[in-house]
Amino acid sequence: MTDVVVAIGGNAILHPGEEATAENQMENLRKSCALLAQMAKKGWNLIVVHGNGPQVGNILLQNELSKTDVPAMPLDICGAQSQGQIGLMLQQAMGEALYNEEVDRNVTCLLTRVIVDLNDPEFTSPSKPIGPYYNRQEAEMHMDQGWRMKEDVARGGWRRLVPSPLPLSVLEADAVRALIDTKNQIVIAAGGGGVPMVRRNGRLCGVEAVVDKDRAASVLAKDLCDLFIILTDVDAAFLDFGGPNQRALGEVTVEELKRYYAEGNFHSGSMGPKVEAAINFVDSPDKMAIITSPELLDKALESRAGTRVVL
Amino acid sequence: MTDVVVAIGGNAILHPGEEATAENQMENLRKSCALLAQMAKKGWNLIVVHGNGPQVGNILLQNELSKTDVPAMPLDICGAQSQGQIGLMLQQAMGEALYNEEVDRNVTCLLTRVIVDLNDPEFTSPSKPIGPYYNRQEAEMHMDQGWRMKEDVARGGWRRLVPSPLPLSVLEADAVRALIDTKNQIVIAAGGGGVPMVRRNGRLCGVEAVVDKDRAASVLAKDLCDLFIILTDVDAAFLDFGGPNQRALGEVTVEELKRYYAEGNFHSGSMGPKVEAAINFVDSPDKMAIITSPELLDKALESRAGTRVVL
Repeated sequence: MTDVVVAIGGNAILHPGEEATAENQMENLRKSCALLAQMAKKGWNLIVVHGNGPQVGNILLQNELSKTDVPAMPLDICGAQSQGQIGLMLQQAMGEALYNEEVDRNVTCLLTRVIVDLNDPEFTSPSKPIGPYYNRQEAEMHMDQGWRMKEDVARGGWRRLVPSPLPLSVLEADAVRALIDTKNQIVIAAGGGGVPMVRRNGRLCGVEAVVDKDRAASVLAKDLCDLFIILTDVDAAFLDFGGPNQRALGEVTVEELKRYYAEGNFHSGSMGPKVEAAINFVDSPDKMAIITSPELLDKALESRAGTRVVL
Repeated sequence: MTDVVVAIGGNAILHPGEEATAENQMENLRKSCALLAQMAKKGWNLIVVHGNGPQVGNILLQNELSKTDVPAMPLDICGAQSQGQIGLMLQQAMGEALYNEEVDRNVTCLLTRVIVDLNDPEFTSPSKPIGPYYNRQEAEMHMDQGWRMKEDVARGGWRRLVPSPLPLSVLEADAVRALIDTKNQIVIAAGGGGVPMVRRNGRLCGVEAVVDKDRAASVLAKDLCDLFIILTDVDAAFLDFGGPNQRALGEVTVEELKRYYAEGNFHSGSMGPKVEAAINFVDSPDKMAIITSPELLDKALESRAGTRVVL
């Protein structure tokens, strides 16, 4: 099987501090897509999952700034908008890269939803800060309307906290399968971790929450393939990252990685969810998860770089 | 074959003058989806195409109002965002309606692009007004930056004019086919007419233009099925609409309809593109296009209401 889920981080689309223009984002995407197109040329069936942090943040900010003229959309719908926004740019950048590699395959983007559990502890204790910063008065107004908020003293403002529940399944997994198997397509799915949905009286409803994109990618990959690649802005997962005993992990078993995780080696806001997603994915001897940077992808596929998680 | 493309108008999502909240749009969509779910229950494979006029207008307005804080996105990307926004709402409303009818089928939304021709006369003489109204000073600034604009004296403002070229093909037609054929899914595609793309040096690029959703639906339907339904807010296409000799068209041949069209019976901003889309679709004796209101859909399928276009 040559199917692979590749998760690309928000930084591969927009570098911190960079102006969030379409041009800048396309330029960054072209670089990642050039590498992915080389994989496609070698025969890999790619399913690409992307982050959406800065983009959905900007959509939320636009909603906030224009709310007297345009009714603000709830977070689930803003997430769906960001899937359209980034999906189109990624589709174009990937199309260009495939054209450069003379690979004649369609790239399709699926609006993707993930099932989460309303009993997930995140719904009572939301942990994920999103969207714009507010002053105390605005924050109090929003809290009166039911938002959870947290003060970020360093940034001098308040931010909304939303639940980041675990994804249980990806509703569009079947559709991804159909496009890969019957049409040999490259598929963009689960953008921004997908839109979280819950069942209420048997019906699926969107909820105001976010799903970590590496976790969603892991659930999708588990359904579909034996290789799962997480591209990020460091070369590998590190023990004691930034500390005196910093050491990059190469090939590592799930059991070892679980131990390192439990020892607190990985930061909860960055490498933590990636390591967790890799652990979740590797549940049989056929499976491997890779954590590396786009630049080292080639070497990592030859087991010469990156963190490679095996059973 | 029981595949059908159904185009639902912007008014089925948001009535003129209604506040553009997610709740109002969901409420309207639930009504249309209840009727579509009944078709699905009878065994029809639905491909649903929706309009996006008011929604992309609001996204453009949000971009304008917040442009000093968030870089404004080009029109093609705003269109993709509207596909995500409306797609998610439609997916949920359709899911609920299918649940009510006890139909167990997935609803998938595909981000859709359509190919247009840069030599289309619309690119030199754009005709479609979109987005917010500007005062003269703002309008002049935008015109200096290359926008075409037109004054709407009645509304007291200037609006941007963009090209509305003819769609030549739908890039995601193959993907729609795969989801219908292999997974028995209901598919949402070509939302807002799809994102218009052109080939530049062999590469596909988004362009700042809009595609009429009925025209795009017609091109998609031509590829996929024998029945094409255009749902709108009138019961049928009328001759001399609003005039002394107003008459609803029932069953009508393509040749007759072409003649009525040439005689100027259909308004270019509303019924014109629908009639044109129906004419474009019906190119064989197996094919039928229906123009009617959601309320009369049932009767129209039994040839007892609506305008039914045949060869």
